[in-house]
Amino acid sequence: MYREPSDVKRVASLGAGPIGGGWTAHFLARGYDVTAYIHDPSERDALMAVVETGWVSLTELGLAPGASMDRLQVTSDLNEAVKGFDFIQESVPERLDVKQALYRRLGDIVPENVVIGSSTSGLTMTEIASDCAGPERCVIGHPFNPPYLLPLVEIVGGKQTDKRAVDWAAAFYEAAGKAPLVMKKEVPGFVATRLQEALWREALHMVSNGEATPEDIDIALKNGPAPRMAVQGQCMAFHVACGEGGMATNLDQFGPALKWPWTRLEAPELTGELRNRMVEGCNAMAGGRNFTDMAAERDRKIVAVLKAVRDTG
Amino acid sequence: MYREPSDVKRVASLGAGPIGGGWTAHFLARGYDVTAYIHDPSERDALMAVVETGWVSLTELGLAPGASMDRLQVTSDLNEAVKGFDFIQESVPERLDVKQALYRRLGDIVPENVVIGSSTSGLTMTEIASDCAGPERCVIGHPFNPPYLLPLVEIVGGKQTDKRAVDWAAAFYEAAGKAPLVMKKEVPGFVATRLQEALWREALHMVSNGEATPEDIDIALKNGPAPRMAVQGQCMAFHVACGEGGMATNLDQFGPALKWPWTRLEAPELTGELRNRMVEGCNAMAGGRNFTDMAAERDRKIVAVLKAVRDTG
Repeated sequence: MYREPSDVKRVASLGAGPIGGGWTAHFLARGYDVTAYIHDPSERDALMAVVETGWVSLTELGLAPGASMDRLQVTSDLNEAVKGFDFIQESVPERLDVKQALYRRLGDIVPENVVIGSSTSGLTMTEIASDCAGPERCVIGHPFNPPYLLPLVEIVGGKQTDKRAVDWAAAFYEAAGKAPLVMKKEVPGFVATRLQEALWREALHMVSNGEATPEDIDIALKNGPAPRMAVQGQCMAFHVACGEGGMATNLDQFGPALKWPWTRLEAPELTGELRNRMVEGCNAMAGGRNFTDMAAERDRKIVAVLKAVRDTG
Repeated sequence: MYREPSDVKRVASLGAGPIGGGWTAHFLARGYDVTAYIHDPSERDALMAVVETGWVSLTELGLAPGASMDRLQVTSDLNEAVKGFDFIQESVPERLDVKQALYRRLGDIVPENVVIGSSTSGLTMTEIASDCAGPERCVIGHPFNPPYLLPLVEIVGGKQTDKRAVDWAAAFYEAAGKAPLVMKKEVPGFVATRLQEALWREALHMVSNGEATPEDIDIALKNGPAPRMAVQGQCMAFHVACGEGGMATNLDQFGPALKWPWTRLEAPELTGELRNRMVEGCNAMAGGRNFTDMAAERDRKIVAVLKAVRDTG
């Protein structure tokens, strides 16, 4: 029903802000023909500023063969923007009425075998596509800012979304050079923003209580957990740090610490089931590699990250 | 009273585990003479394995002139370990009775003008040094694992600690190539571990609720917030992402989101005072640089981090 994800040649990006412009730059850099839809011709300069900023980084990361900013068309005619395009990324302002009105129009003019991905961070696709013809092909494809740099795209459908559209979007985003993450459920904040928000709220608590300044928060993150988290994520960081015992040792040893008032966030009950999910998940990620090799790889990558941060002006 | 931090030549590192061994490797790499104290001669191989592992990364990051593993002495004689040394880093097992007994001995044999730093992550210096002669020079200097790689050292005194010892430790750790963070208060978990723990508890909630797998958590972190957090920290990440309005715009615009159930952590009340602390802190860090330059620097560094992670095997 849907075109093969790897056969997508033309992408429409709707929206002139940092997210829409970031997507436009990303898709151009991956070698697609891109049409950017802007609501009003006056938004063109703002859009192009974002695209040009993103292009600098994307060039440094490596462009796909044939990628060119010359393959960008900008239009404020929605019909023209979406006509004949294989995928549509929507990043218009984060207002439900604005999105609903747009999806009503898109439902009429976009063939039902073309998937539409929304960059929304706070709305559900159930709400957005409530009045759209063919809501089965509408999914959320939520990027992380800046979208031309950070690979994550969180994908989840609404109640009317076809699971095949979700799978198609995951395959397409991966083919387009992104790191797709298909959500198990519609959860507010998805995964990354929830994790970041937990950390952020604790940071605000510390500043509020006079326990740390904003500068302290940033010094702690940049020189402590963040370089390791960029390399391993937090689950594998704990798994590998515990050596042969891995995540099981971590939970069995530090489980009681979940009751300590480190952070104002209450931890869940560490049931046997939760313990097993964590342990099995980490074992699956390790995929049989031994701990010495994983720790050595972690160290090589953290060294490279530290040098990258230190030596880049 | 204390020796000039930049005049420290000889450091004693007490403890044979990953933390003690990591500190030993770090101080050797910074060009100090180091004596490592191990409780029992049988621990020597374990210590040397950690030191040798750390040495690989430290060499890659760049050794100080004259730095050599030949400048390491290993002893299980505590008197010999600390005699004539300018600074003592203590990383013995995390048991209050063990630490108290050690500090009682250290109090008798270490001159009172030599600062003793403890790697403890969970005990207070008030408790640890309760029976130590000269508790004024005893501070916590808590590293982040692995200590030979991550620069952060969180510094805080106990009730009997002299503020000058805290300041001296901060200056010494900085001279020794670390990123010191002097805590405003004795807070369990310090700064970095509290922030990491808030994120970790939310991750456990998501796994517990079937909202994400451990692999989802790590994919989200590695491809989303972590590379940016390694470059800017979370305060400056939000400050710069909001452009000219900076942190003020962030808080005014997203303040209501603090009430949303993104994460199970309740946020503090966003009072005018908290808002001002956040805004002023970010302005101080920005130090008058303009937003375009800061965003461009962020992008260059994230590009370098992404390439570092991608291209390092």
